[in-house]
Amino acid sequence: MLEDKDPQRTALSELGEFGLIAHLTEHFKIAHSSTIKGIGDDAAILEFDKQQLVITTDLLVEGVHFDLSYMPLKHLGYKAVMVNLSDVYAMNASASQITVSIAVSNRFPLEALEDLYAGIQTACINYKVDLVGGDTTSSNTGLVISITAVGHAVAKEITTRATAKPNDLLVVTGDIGAAYMGYQVLEREKQVFAVNPNNQPDLEPYSYIVERQLKPEARKDIKPLLAQLDVHPTSMIDISDGLSSEILHLCKASEVGCNLFEDKIPLDPQVIQVCEEFELDSTTIALSGGEDYELLFTISQDDYPKIKANPNLTVIGHMTEEKEGAHLITRANTKIPLIARGWNALDPKE
Amino acid sequence: MLEDKDPQRTALSELGEFGLIAHLTEHFKIAHSSTIKGIGDDAAILEFDKQQLVITTDLLVEGVHFDLSYMPLKHLGYKAVMVNLSDVYAMNASASQITVSIAVSNRFPLEALEDLYAGIQTACINYKVDLVGGDTTSSNTGLVISITAVGHAVAKEITTRATAKPNDLLVVTGDIGAAYMGYQVLEREKQVFAVNPNNQPDLEPYSYIVERQLKPEARKDIKPLLAQLDVHPTSMIDISDGLSSEILHLCKASEVGCNLFEDKIPLDPQVIQVCEEFELDSTTIALSGGEDYELLFTISQDDYPKIKANPNLTVIGHMTEEKEGAHLITRANTKIPLIARGWNALDPKE
Repeated sequence: MLEDKDPQRTALSELGEFGLIAHLTEHFKIAHSSTIKGIGDDAAILEFDKQQLVITTDLLVEGVHFDLSYMPLKHLGYKAVMVNLSDVYAMNASASQITVSIAVSNRFPLEALEDLYAGIQTACINYKVDLVGGDTTSSNTGLVISITAVGHAVAKEITTRATAKPNDLLVVTGDIGAAYMGYQVLEREKQVFAVNPNNQPDLEPYSYIVERQLKPEARKDIKPLLAQLDVHPTSMIDISDGLSSEILHLCKASEVGCNLFEDKIPLDPQVIQVCEEFELDSTTIALSGGEDYELLFTISQDDYPKIKANPNLTVIGHMTEEKEGAHLITRANTKIPLIARGWNALDPKE
Repeated sequence: MLEDKDPQRTALSELGEFGLIAHLTEHFKIAHSSTIKGIGDDAAILEFDKQQLVITTDLLVEGVHFDLSYMPLKHLGYKAVMVNLSDVYAMNASASQITVSIAVSNRFPLEALEDLYAGIQTACINYKVDLVGGDTTSSNTGLVISITAVGHAVAKEITTRATAKPNDLLVVTGDIGAAYMGYQVLEREKQVFAVNPNNQPDLEPYSYIVERQLKPEARKDIKPLLAQLDVHPTSMIDISDGLSSEILHLCKASEVGCNLFEDKIPLDPQVIQVCEEFELDSTTIALSGGEDYELLFTISQDDYPKIKANPNLTVIGHMTEEKEGAHLITRANTKIPLIARGWNALDPKE
C-alpha cells in the first residue's frame, strides 16, 4: 500500500481531533471576500451579496471510489476536490468554498493525511477555493472523504439540466473516455504487480489517460470562456458517469429528446490506441466510461458561429422533441437508442 | 442487529443509485423560499437576501459514533440531523437546509434506509429544514453518514465563540450529562443482552437519559428566546463534547479565562440518581460526558435581569482575564483547573 511507504510514521492519536484538524489545515489561506470566517468555529460564515449560491456534496469511499494501491494520497485529495468543483461548474457557477470531512483508520499515519491535505491544498490554490470547515474522525476500516462545495453566480447565469430546448445544439468540452481507459491500464498493472512485484510498470505510453484518471481537472475555464464568447448555455451537466447516462439525465430533466452523432464524439488519439490494445470499442467507452469531469451543455443554434472555432468545445448532437427519444446516430448512419450504462456507484468496481 | 429484524428485505442494487436517491427523498417537501432548487441537479441553488450564511458539516461512522445494536435507524437519522443543526444554532443562526450523504454496505436492505430517511424527514419537518442534496454510495463495511447544514442570519446576529469578554456571565441551556449516562445504561444493557439474549431490558427508570442519548433535540428555540428577551449573546458554542472541553474552546478563542461553579451546573435528578447507581461523580460526567447538544453562551452582566427567571437558562459561571485561566470552583470552594476530557472522536468508544 502506498501509504505505508513513508518511513516517517506518526500515530494520529498523538495529536487528538482538534490538534489534527489544526495541523492539517494550518497552511491553508483564505482567498475570497465571501469567506467571512473559515475553520475554527461551530460553522463557517459566508456572505454572497446579490448572488445565488450553489451547494453540492460527494462522498468517496476507499475500495469503492478509489484504490490506494495505485492512487497516491496527494492525487486522491486533489481528485476529491475536483469531483465536487465539477458539480459547481456544471451549474455555470464559480466555486469559492469547500468543507472536507474524513474518516480514517489507525493504519494511516499522520504523514499519509498530510499528503492527502497537500493534494487538497494544491486544488484549493489552483482553483482559488477556500477550505472553510470539516470534520476529522476515526473509521474502523478504510478512508472515507466527504466534500461539500459552495459556489455562486448571479441568478440569470446559473444553468440547470432542466432547461434544454428542442433544436438546441449539444456541446461537450475537452475529450472523453480517457479516465476510464486510464483506470483499465492501472487495473492491469495492479494484476501484473500482484503476480510479479519486481515488475516495474512503464506507464509512459499511457501518460495522458493515466493522468486523466489520477489527476483530473474540473472545467473552471468554461464559465469565463462562454461569457467571453457571449454564449449563454441553455442547460448544463457534468460528465461524472458516462456520456450516455448524462445525456439521458439532461433529456429527462428538460423533457426533450436527443440525437448524438458517433463520429462527432471527441476522443484523444491515446484513447483510440489503448481501446485497440484492450480490444474495446472506443464509442462504448466514451458512452459508458465515466469520471471525465468534462461539461456537457446545450446552446441555441444561433450561438453556433460563436463556438465553432473553439478547440475546447465540440458539437456532438442536437436536442429533439421528447417523443423522439434519445438516440446515437452511428458512423454507418443507423439510429440506436441511448442506454445508461454509466458506472453505478452502488456496484463497486471491485 | 436491529436492521435485520424487518421481515421485508429489498436489495439496494434493485434500485440503482439514482432510483435509490429518488425513492428515499420523494416525500421530502421544501419549506423555505431561500431554497430555489433542491435535489435533482448537479447542485442545489440557494438565495439569502441580505443575510450571512453559516455552513457546518459532520461525519458519523458506524462503530465510532453510533452502535446499531441499540440505536434504531430512525433515531440515528434524526440524531445525525440534530448534531449538525446544533452547530448552526451555536452561531445564533436559523437552520434552513441540509445535504445528506450516506455510504452503506449491502447488508442493509432498502427498508433499513427507509427507516433512516424517515428519521431524517421527521427532523426536517420538526426543525423546518429543507433536504437539498446528497450522495448515496456503497461501502465495504458499515454505514457512514455525512451531513452538511446551512443556516442564515443577519450579520449582527451571528455569534462566534471568539467574542466573550472578561466579566461576561457564562450561561448554559437545559441540563447536561444526561446523554452520556444514557449511553452508559445502553452499553450495560448490551452486555446483559450478550450474556442472556432472553433478558428484556427495563429502560423505564432511565427514559429521560436514554432519550437524550438516542433522540437528542437541538436548541432551535434559543435564538428566538434570546431575541424575545432582548439579549444578544456575546459568544456562543454548542456542547457536543463535554462542558469543560467547550468552555476551554470558548476561553481559547475569546482569549479569556473562566470561573465555573460546580454547584450551578444543571443536572437532571435522573442523572444524579443514575450516577449514584453507576458510582460515578455527576460533576465529572457533566464536565466530560458530551453529546448533550445544549448551547453554552456568554452575556453581558447588564443582561442578567432579563434571563434570571428563565427555566431554560442557567448561569454557571463568569469569564475572567485570560491570565487567570479556566477553573472549576467546587462545592467545597476549592479552585481546580479545568481540563478537557471530552469524548475524543479519534478514540473510538469501542
